Amino acid sequence: MDETTRRAWAYLSRVAEPPCAALAALVAEAGAVDAAERVRRGAVSADLRARVESRRDIDCAAADLDLIDRRGGRLITPDDDDWPTWVLNDFGRKDPPVAEDYPPLVLWVLGQENLADVAARAAAIVGTRACTAYGEHVTADLVAGLVERDVAVVSGGAFGIDGAAHRAALASDGVTVAVLAGGIDVPYPAGHSALLHRVSGSGLLVSEYPPGVRPARYRFLTRNRLVAALSGATVVVEAGLRSGAANTAGWSRSLGRGVCAVPGPVTSAASAGCHELLRREGTVLVTRAQEVVEVMGRIGELADELEHPVRPLDGLSGVQRLVYEALPARGARTVDEIGRDSGVPAAQVLGPLTILEIDGLVERHEGKWRLARPARRAG
Amino acid sequence: MDETTRRAWAYLSRVAEPPCAALAALVAEAGAVDAAERVRRGAVSADLRARVESRRDIDCAAADLDLIDRRGGRLITPDDDDWPTWVLNDFGRKDPPVAEDYPPLVLWVLGQENLADVAARAAAIVGTRACTAYGEHVTADLVAGLVERDVAVVSGGAFGIDGAAHRAALASDGVTVAVLAGGIDVPYPAGHSALLHRVSGSGLLVSEYPPGVRPARYRFLTRNRLVAALSGATVVVEAGLRSGAANTAGWSRSLGRGVCAVPGPVTSAASAGCHELLRREGTVLVTRAQEVVEVMGRIGELADELEHPVRPLDGLSGVQRLVYEALPARGARTVDEIGRDSGVPAAQVLGPLTILEIDGLVERHEGKWRLARPARRAG
Repeated sequence: MDETTRRAWAYLSRVAEPPCAALAALVAEAGAVDAAERVRRGAVSADLRARVESRRDIDCAAADLDLIDRRGGRLITPDDDDWPTWVLNDFGRKDPPVAEDYPPLVLWVLGQENLADVAARAAAIVGTRACTAYGEHVTADLVAGLVERDVAVVSGGAFGIDGAAHRAALASDGVTVAVLAGGIDVPYPAGHSALLHRVSGSGLLVSEYPPGVRPARYRFLTRNRLVAALSGATVVVEAGLRSGAANTAGWSRSLGRGVCAVPGPVTSAASAGCHELLRREGTVLVTRAQEVVEVMGRIGELADELEHPVRPLDGLSGVQRLVYEALPARGARTVDEIGRDSGVPAAQVLGPLTILEIDGLVERHEGKWRLARPARRAG
Repeated sequence: MDETTRRAWAYLSRVAEPPCAALAALVAEAGAVDAAERVRRGAVSADLRARVESRRDIDCAAADLDLIDRRGGRLITPDDDDWPTWVLNDFGRKDPPVAEDYPPLVLWVLGQENLADVAARAAAIVGTRACTAYGEHVTADLVAGLVERDVAVVSGGAFGIDGAAHRAALASDGVTVAVLAGGIDVPYPAGHSALLHRVSGSGLLVSEYPPGVRPARYRFLTRNRLVAALSGATVVVEAGLRSGAANTAGWSRSLGRGVCAVPGPVTSAASAGCHELLRREGTVLVTRAQEVVEVMGRIGELADELEHPVRPLDGLSGVQRLVYEALPARGARTVDEIGRDSGVPAAQVLGPLTILEIDGLVERHEGKWRLARPARRAG
C-alpha cells in the first residue's frame, strides 16, 4: 500500500466517529484516496456530510502514522492481509438494525501477532470491574485452560475480570488481545498502563480509534462489539445486573457467536448478571475451559449451516479456491494479477472466476475482478 | 370404606415391593378385597405370583392399621378423597419404560394436611447430604419465599439440603412434606427423628411402604419419584456429580414437571451436579422463590396444552363438572348415587354422563359409571 493510500485511510479513520456506514460505503465505491478527497471537499451525501462536518478539516494522518510507526504498531485496513475479514463480515444481523452493527473502517494495532490468525481461534473473557476474589480465581483458571488449548484471550483491558484475563494469559505465555475504547497511545485505565504495555509486547492492542482519542462512555459500548466479533465465544465470568459484559454478550449473540456465562453464588451481586444471562435461552453455563472450546466448535459447525456466501471455502474446488483467495478483501485485480498471485496460469483463471461470479462470490468491476461484498450486494 | 376393604389394601401394600404394576392391575380389575383374596390363594398370574410369593402369607394388616391409627395417621388409597389422583396419573411416560414409573398402590400418611390439596401447590427442594453453609443458606431463603407464596415444600427428610428445607418451612409456619423410603414409624435418618416428628405435626409424613419397613438403597430411588410427582417443580439446591438429587430431577423431567437448579461457585464440588443439570436443555436456573413459582406456573400452562384427558376441569360445563367429580377415583357409581353425591337431580345426570363418555372421560361398567383411566384405556 502506498503512502498516499495509507494516509487516506488514516484521515478517514478520524473524520467520522466509527462505525460510520455511509463513510464505509463511499470508500467501497470510490477507494480510500478518492473518498478522502471527496470528504475533504465536502462533496458527499448530506447524511455523510453531517457525520464528517466537524472533523473534515483535521488532517493529522501523517502524524498519526508516524506515531504508530514509532511505537512499532500499524494501521490495518481491509486491504491488508491481517484484516480479519470473515469475522468482521458477521455484522449487520441485528433486528431491528442499529448503527453500531457495522464493521470498523480500519484498525490501529500494536503488537506482533497477526490479527486475522488470532481471531480465528479466540475467546472473549469479560466481566465486571467490581469482581470478587472468586471471579479472579475462576478467570485465571479458565484462561490457563484456554491458553493450553491454543485459544487466544480477548478482553477490554478494564479493571476487574478483563485485567485478570489479560494477566492470566500473559502468565501462561498465551496470546491476549486488548480492544481499547480510545487511541492505542492512550492507555486506559491509567492504572493498567504497564499491563497494556505487556499485552502489546506478547499479544495485541487493537482499536478502531486513531491515536489520541480519549475513551468515552459510548465508545466502550461500541468497542464491546469488536471484543465479541474477534472471538468465537464470549464468556462472562462475573457481571452485575445491567453490566457492560452483558452488552458484549448481546453482541456475541447477534453476531452468531457463542454466549457463555460462569455461575457463582446466588448471594453474590457480582454473579447476578451471569445468572440473568443463564436464565435466557442460548447462554451456555461453563465451568472450565474445555466447555468454552466446545461452544466455539459448535458455533463453527453451525456457521457452515447458515447462509455465508462470502465464506465459501468448503464448497470450492482447489483451483476455484486459489483464484478466490487471490482477490483482496478490498480492491480489484486483473486476470493477470490473479494468475500471478494464485499461481494459476492466467489462461486458466477466467473459468473459475466465471463460476465464482455465478455463485455471487466475485464480480467484475471496470475490467477487473473483485470480491462481492454483503454491503455492496445490499446496495 | 369398611374395615375389610381397608385391611385388604393394607395387606396388598406389603405383599409386593412397590410399585408393582401387575398388582395394581389386579386391584383395578377385581377391587381390593377380591385382589387380596386371590393373592393369598396364589390364584394370580405367574408374573404377579413371583412378585408376592415371599410375602403372601404375611398378614399384619390389622396390626399395621392399628399402629397407624394410634399414631394419628391413616392409610390412603385411590378411593379416598385426599388421594392426589391427578399428580400420580402422570407416571408412565418414561421412554424406554421402567418398572418404577408407576403410581404407588397406597400411601401411609401421618399429619393433618390433605395430601391432594398440598400436592396441588408444592415444590420439591432437594440436594446433597454433604451440603455447604451456602447451600443451607440458599435453601432457607428459597423455602421462606415459597412459604410466603403458599407453596408447600416437599423433600426426602435426609441430612443436608432436605433437612434444611423441612426446617426452614417449619420455621416459617409453612406446610412441608417428607416422603420417606421406609415405614413412617421408622424415622430415618435416626438423627432426624425429632425433625420428622415436627414435620408430621404441622405437615405430612408420606410413604408407600407399610409400617416397619426399613429404608434400603433402591427404596430411596423409588421414593424419589414420589418427591417429584407430588411437586409442580423440583429444585436442586446443591448436588455432587451423580447424586440422588439428580435422580429426583430426572423423575421430575419425565413426569412433565419443572426442573430447576441453583447455581453456586464452580469451585464447589457441592454445586457440580447443579451445573451439570443446568448445562442440559430444560433445566431452569433459579436464584429466588419467585423464579421457582414461575416454573410451576409455566408447567401448569404447558400441562393444558398437552393431551391430558383425565384433567378435564377447564373444558367442562358446571353440571358436567359436578357429575364428573361425583365419580370416585376407583370404583363405579349408579346414576342415583351420582345424583346424590353431585347434587344434580338424578333425572339430569345421564345427559352430562353421555357427553363425558363421548369425551372419553367416563365409561359404563356393569350398569354403573366410572372414570376412564389411562391404564384401562391402554389395556
